[in-house]
Amino acid sequence: MNKVIELLKSHRSIRKFTSKPIDQEIVEELVRAGQCAATSSFIQACTVIQVTDPALRETLCEAAAHQLYVKDSPVFLVFCADLQRHQMACDMHNSKMRSGFTEQFLTASLDCALFAQNVLIAAESLGLGGCYIGAIRNKIAEVDELLELPDKVYPVFGMCLGYPDQDPEIKPRLPLDVVLKQQRYSAENDRQRISTYDEQVRAYYRSRTGGAKDNSWSEQISDMLVKEARPHMLSYLQSKGFILK
Amino acid sequence: MNKVIELLKSHRSIRKFTSKPIDQEIVEELVRAGQCAATSSFIQACTVIQVTDPALRETLCEAAAHQLYVKDSPVFLVFCADLQRHQMACDMHNSKMRSGFTEQFLTASLDCALFAQNVLIAAESLGLGGCYIGAIRNKIAEVDELLELPDKVYPVFGMCLGYPDQDPEIKPRLPLDVVLKQQRYSAENDRQRISTYDEQVRAYYRSRTGGAKDNSWSEQISDMLVKEARPHMLSYLQSKGFILK
Repeated sequence: MNKVIELLKSHRSIRKFTSKPIDQEIVEELVRAGQCAATSSFIQACTVIQVTDPALRETLCEAAAHQLYVKDSPVFLVFCADLQRHQMACDMHNSKMRSGFTEQFLTASLDCALFAQNVLIAAESLGLGGCYIGAIRNKIAEVDELLELPDKVYPVFGMCLGYPDQDPEIKPRLPLDVVLKQQRYSAENDRQRISTYDEQVRAYYRSRTGGAKDNSWSEQISDMLVKEARPHMLSYLQSKGFILK
Repeated sequence: MNKVIELLKSHRSIRKFTSKPIDQEIVEELVRAGQCAATSSFIQACTVIQVTDPALRETLCEAAAHQLYVKDSPVFLVFCADLQRHQMACDMHNSKMRSGFTEQFLTASLDCALFAQNVLIAAESLGLGGCYIGAIRNKIAEVDELLELPDKVYPVFGMCLGYPDQDPEIKPRLPLDVVLKQQRYSAENDRQRISTYDEQVRAYYRSRTGGAKDNSWSEQISDMLVKEARPHMLSYLQSKGFILK
């Protein structure tokens, strides 16, 4: 439809990078592009921590399910939802910040996602590739301590960036009529549509792994959801001043 | 730096639209571009509800702080975090879904944000403009009922789209050194940087409103945070099966 939409539709997670470094000017330009994303009520609640220190990268890699690209990618960024600055703004005007609302946790987290998506798109527009690292939430309290995050700041996800050294296929997405509804929510026919899609995903994995992996989307989701999902998150977030009410 | 980055950096919220409609083919193309965003563990937890019914748009407008563009914009979309499909996937394989984790709420919400940001960028690349509507969370239970959302589905935000009938200035963002940190979190010098930035924001509002509005960023944030932030959110979300543990 146009080059921007083609770029968006050609996204794949890149997890293998050449050794070519990314100029710091480029990193800063990417972050500036991130800042230009919409922000809820102008709160600008995203802070990015760029980690270059090899020892720190190594420890973060261990905390993030030993995904080696956390250690090895040319650039590694951690996107933090940050309401500490807002505490500062209240202090500057001698007003008492009312905090701990779930709504504030949500808006700050969404701010980070909009910001980070701009960073990734900007990077991809320059021929870079990357991936989000949700696994930093595996041991989130440890990551928090390593990055010396104060109260009201938590690490939402990491991001690896670099010049791609792989060319994976684009992963097929759910059929449009499963994700786009008219007027009201309806799951009518979705089960059948998902069954059809399941076979597409199975074929994708088969071709990508030479037959070694061949599970469908619903199998993959079902296998994941019989397990607990980072059950430490709520108590960690509450210890940081989030989701208290 | 390049046209994509220029596009990202030229974002402003558009709230006034010409009457020119958007072809449904374009809406579908935007949603397809949204689907191509990264998704946490391939969960694809975003469902978009397109509302065209005028009576429903009118009621949603009333629920969303009477922002008239919710009623009048050529296209109005509601982005829902959706784990209902995942319940279906578990049912298809006779497995018991473990749900209610805060982590699942977070990943589904982030999925929606990455998806929606792609939709907005794709729209802007076609000369459209738009804005996020967080105000649908003002009366979220009412919006939920209007859209007939089942258990494990909640409306994250709305989005208005259309051809711009206004040309607002770009809002200045926080200085780069406030939002980009090296190795670890540090707020050193941030208070001073924010004070400088405050005057930039004050000048922006003055020029935009002919002097009628002239508050700084920290004033605006401080004024907002002395109030409660949608205190109904936690109990609403828990009633839908989110953030139970």
